Amino acid sequence: MKIAIYGYGNLGRGVECSIMQNSDMELVGIFTRRNPDSVKPQFESTKVYSVDDILSFKDIIDVLIICGGSATDLPKMTPALAEHFNVIDSFDTHADIPTHFANTDFTAKSGKKTAIISVGWDPGMFSLNRLYASVILPEGNDYTFWGKGVSQGHSDAIRRIEGVLDARQYTCPVEEALNSVRRGENPELTTRQKHTRECFVVVEDGADKQRIEQEIKNMPKYFADYDTTVNFISQEELNKNHSGIPHGGFVIRTGKTGKNKENNHVIEYSLKLDSNPEFTASVLVAYARAALRMNKRGNFGCKTAFDVAPADLSIMTPDEIRAKML
Amino acid sequence: MKIAIYGYGNLGRGVECSIMQNSDMELVGIFTRRNPDSVKPQFESTKVYSVDDILSFKDIIDVLIICGGSATDLPKMTPALAEHFNVIDSFDTHADIPTHFANTDFTAKSGKKTAIISVGWDPGMFSLNRLYASVILPEGNDYTFWGKGVSQGHSDAIRRIEGVLDARQYTCPVEEALNSVRRGENPELTTRQKHTRECFVVVEDGADKQRIEQEIKNMPKYFADYDTTVNFISQEELNKNHSGIPHGGFVIRTGKTGKNKENNHVIEYSLKLDSNPEFTASVLVAYARAALRMNKRGNFGCKTAFDVAPADLSIMTPDEIRAKML
Repeated sequence: MKIAIYGYGNLGRGVECSIMQNSDMELVGIFTRRNPDSVKPQFESTKVYSVDDILSFKDIIDVLIICGGSATDLPKMTPALAEHFNVIDSFDTHADIPTHFANTDFTAKSGKKTAIISVGWDPGMFSLNRLYASVILPEGNDYTFWGKGVSQGHSDAIRRIEGVLDARQYTCPVEEALNSVRRGENPELTTRQKHTRECFVVVEDGADKQRIEQEIKNMPKYFADYDTTVNFISQEELNKNHSGIPHGGFVIRTGKTGKNKENNHVIEYSLKLDSNPEFTASVLVAYARAALRMNKRGNFGCKTAFDVAPADLSIMTPDEIRAKML
Repeated sequence: MKIAIYGYGNLGRGVECSIMQNSDMELVGIFTRRNPDSVKPQFESTKVYSVDDILSFKDIIDVLIICGGSATDLPKMTPALAEHFNVIDSFDTHADIPTHFANTDFTAKSGKKTAIISVGWDPGMFSLNRLYASVILPEGNDYTFWGKGVSQGHSDAIRRIEGVLDARQYTCPVEEALNSVRRGENPELTTRQKHTRECFVVVEDGADKQRIEQEIKNMPKYFADYDTTVNFISQEELNKNHSGIPHGGFVIRTGKTGKNKENNHVIEYSLKLDSNPEFTASVLVAYARAALRMNKRGNFGCKTAFDVAPADLSIMTPDEIRAKML
């Protein structure tokens, strides 16, 4: 199957690598809004085209993986492209998913295409685990913890403070809260009790570190509701020890069964990722396989991971999956 | 939707309780091979019928949950019943799944029914997690650990030894092996390195404990390949501390991404269950909902958890799932 990448940042680079790991897939190329000559792919064999030429590839591309941002790119790109291509995106603005779904469903159906949105790990694999766990244990509680991992949004927020040259912010789950959940204690947890925020900040020479630390710790929404620690380090140290984009987290559901609810159960799913964008990209690529199969069966319109039968994700035949994985 | 239970042991009792937790379900009754008058359900409202009368309920039962054993019951029951009913079973003899699938597929298709087999946690939720993890990380390694939990088969094997009155056997994962897997070390693990076996045994007065311990530890297949500990205890202590049927385990996949495979990822799914049969029953009940929905869409024949879109398991509408769970 022939896959193309629309947009080439960290996520697009991850998709480029992931396609190489899937022997039934071939990369048509990268479509960029920049001058194609200015884009340097990771593999020499990868072709780069302008997004202006995308429609001339309508009959060549089986699935287009859209690697844009959720804030402004995807709400426009995905509905527009879903009229002409089977598409996958990683739209992650939770509150806007119903609108994005409806817009994409309309165009995909009119073009007889299949679009799978909000693919990745959260939304994505974490969502699936919340669903599976809740249907098995209807009487129970759900908990999602994130980290330890880099939050780009929080790192950017620190960088906007006067005197800050660079910054990296880690979201960390609170171990004691995690363990209380695992013990089935069903704690009611405040924002502060679930996660801490750890910041590594590079400042200008002579900058007022005390002011910067206070500005960070008191920033509404981003930091004020959390226990935040601020570490001032050199650019060299930041580059050396904090250049990766790790992430991860935990989805835990505890619930009760039995005539008198006497039995407790804990279902836990966790991820520990060296590279958030490369892992997300790997999920997108697996769902590209499913999108093509569903489209061939006439299953048009917008879908999420909830609508995809797991077998459609695998390179193996149904017989092989049953023999090897069940 | 109207659910019936076929066979009433630990699993059937678990299904009876689980149906009470699902507000869209109603229990038609229990069908037993015993004299219906001799079966005492957990809830007064539950009706008990003879399996001989099952066909007269053909138009009343939406889904029949078959709670028989994998060794001799299910290979006959499921194909026979799938011609007349949508059915769910928990067939768990891994090597015989292809045959069981083919037999059930044939009858279900001829009766225009939907059968979902091998539902539970392994096979079942563990299988799903092996599949999801392997499609996301094609270059990686899978590990499944079981326990700490009671193995009925191993407990039964001990009870057959001369001089043994009762026994309970726990399968335990080896913590050091688990941690090596989590660290991404991709260890090659022998049977002995993955699990230990812990036995609690009640013997007759004056029985030769040393002989019994040796017979247990040297029993081929069951114990000889494991580090086994044997504890002799009183019947009272066994009843007091070892009457539950807990189980659980871990499915872990580690894999690499990136141009030079420089990034490691760990996906881990784990279960900690107070009651193995009640948890398994809860999974069966969720898949009963999916079986009816798939049947209404004309999706006939034999299926496994791999073929079921997660949304079909939920009592919520697709809109609600996207708004609340994605």
